[in-house]
Amino acid sequence: MPTILVTNDDGVHAGGIKALADAVRPLGDVLVVAPHQESSAIGHALTLRRPLRLEQFGPDTYAVDGTPTDCVNIAVAVLLKGRLPDLVVSGINTGWNLGDDITYSGTVSGALEAALLGAPAIAVSLMRTRDWTFDFGPSAKVAQDVAAHVLRKGLPERVFLNVNVPRGLPKGIRLTVQGKRNHVTTIAERQDPRGQTYYWIEEGQDHWHEHDRSDFVACREGYVSITPLQPDMTAHATGPAWLSDLATD
Amino acid sequence: MPTILVTNDDGVHAGGIKALADAVRPLGDVLVVAPHQESSAIGHALTLRRPLRLEQFGPDTYAVDGTPTDCVNIAVAVLLKGRLPDLVVSGINTGWNLGDDITYSGTVSGALEAALLGAPAIAVSLMRTRDWTFDFGPSAKVAQDVAAHVLRKGLPERVFLNVNVPRGLPKGIRLTVQGKRNHVTTIAERQDPRGQTYYWIEEGQDHWHEHDRSDFVACREGYVSITPLQPDMTAHATGPAWLSDLATD
Repeated sequence: MPTILVTNDDGVHAGGIKALADAVRPLGDVLVVAPHQESSAIGHALTLRRPLRLEQFGPDTYAVDGTPTDCVNIAVAVLLKGRLPDLVVSGINTGWNLGDDITYSGTVSGALEAALLGAPAIAVSLMRTRDWTFDFGPSAKVAQDVAAHVLRKGLPERVFLNVNVPRGLPKGIRLTVQGKRNHVTTIAERQDPRGQTYYWIEEGQDHWHEHDRSDFVACREGYVSITPLQPDMTAHATGPAWLSDLATD
Repeated sequence: MPTILVTNDDGVHAGGIKALADAVRPLGDVLVVAPHQESSAIGHALTLRRPLRLEQFGPDTYAVDGTPTDCVNIAVAVLLKGRLPDLVVSGINTGWNLGDDITYSGTVSGALEAALLGAPAIAVSLMRTRDWTFDFGPSAKVAQDVAAHVLRKGLPERVFLNVNVPRGLPKGIRLTVQGKRNHVTTIAERQDPRGQTYYWIEEGQDHWHEHDRSDFVACREGYVSITPLQPDMTAHATGPAWLSDLATD
């Protein structure tokens, strides 16, 4: 039986990770290692300034007081004694991780860390709802199908998958590219009871650059979006000519 | 005069940010907004679960109790009242940010956030020394030259620069690509005074995939490495064929 590591950024007690673990349990031996607490927008953070604790919550379920990236490392190095899992799945996140926003995402970073360590990985996110109630059913089914596919076919080296699922029953699955958006961050200014100012980062009113094949368009049109990602951020199209009068070698 | 925003992940009181601010001061109006505390390996984290405080430390120097990503957003939205700076420089980090490790880097994430907001940006990192003493002189000169170049020529849309400087006097400047490494995370297990186990994430013994044009090779050979980066992580080479029996649209 393949070993399947399950993590997330919403925390070990979130409904999404339970649905995801249940969905992949028929496919292999499941190990759940997730943050104690919600750590959304934590990005690809590694905890180096303080030590980490590992707590067991069930026969195959553990929590780490750190980030999804910490969880993947603790799972591999401590619980699996250095052996890589056959698959890492991260999610199901309550809220899409689309376009440039994936660079903030703890859910996606869990999968990225697995890819850097050399394990096939999938991040799964579900559209946010207004009242924060979620039906994980359709997204869990998608996660199961994609996980089975990856276990059967593997993934190209260092490639991992970012899967986003619309609300309700998806119309189908689309292979997509990471979308772009114009970022505008809104900051709310408030006063504390002592008259001192503090600031909340809000989610801005952003404009998406439309692109037929983008993850955003697929989800908006009711399709599951699967974007193959990899860790190389080099702007390969920016050639030496642009910097030619600066480079000296 | 152009407006130049200076940030880092080593904190507002670090020697590297002072050297960087001094280096770019002849080029424009400098605004320093950096984390209160060191926040290395914080990745591209955005603080959404608690509010942020902004504290002034000098005529053009401010600290935020958050991440480099938070700093860039607070600087633009609050201090610059929504106006984008003409350039954002992040650093000088004490320790290289090379290859896949840039995905963990707070220094690089400060520049990434600026690029997402639409401002030209440069991250600058200097080789770590054994005794943690640093001569920022040569790297500050490099930062000044690259900053002047970007202010003069601009940068392609969404492209930002990752600059790494070797110790001592660089032999020259090379344009590079993001290197790959085999990640192996080492975890040290210890017992607290109450006999409970805790774990430290250590820097692993990693092997670099050699690549003549990689950032790692350039730095190792004594050259300044400049890698043009962009936020798209799509694995464009992974075509639809690979997932064809899964996709339905």
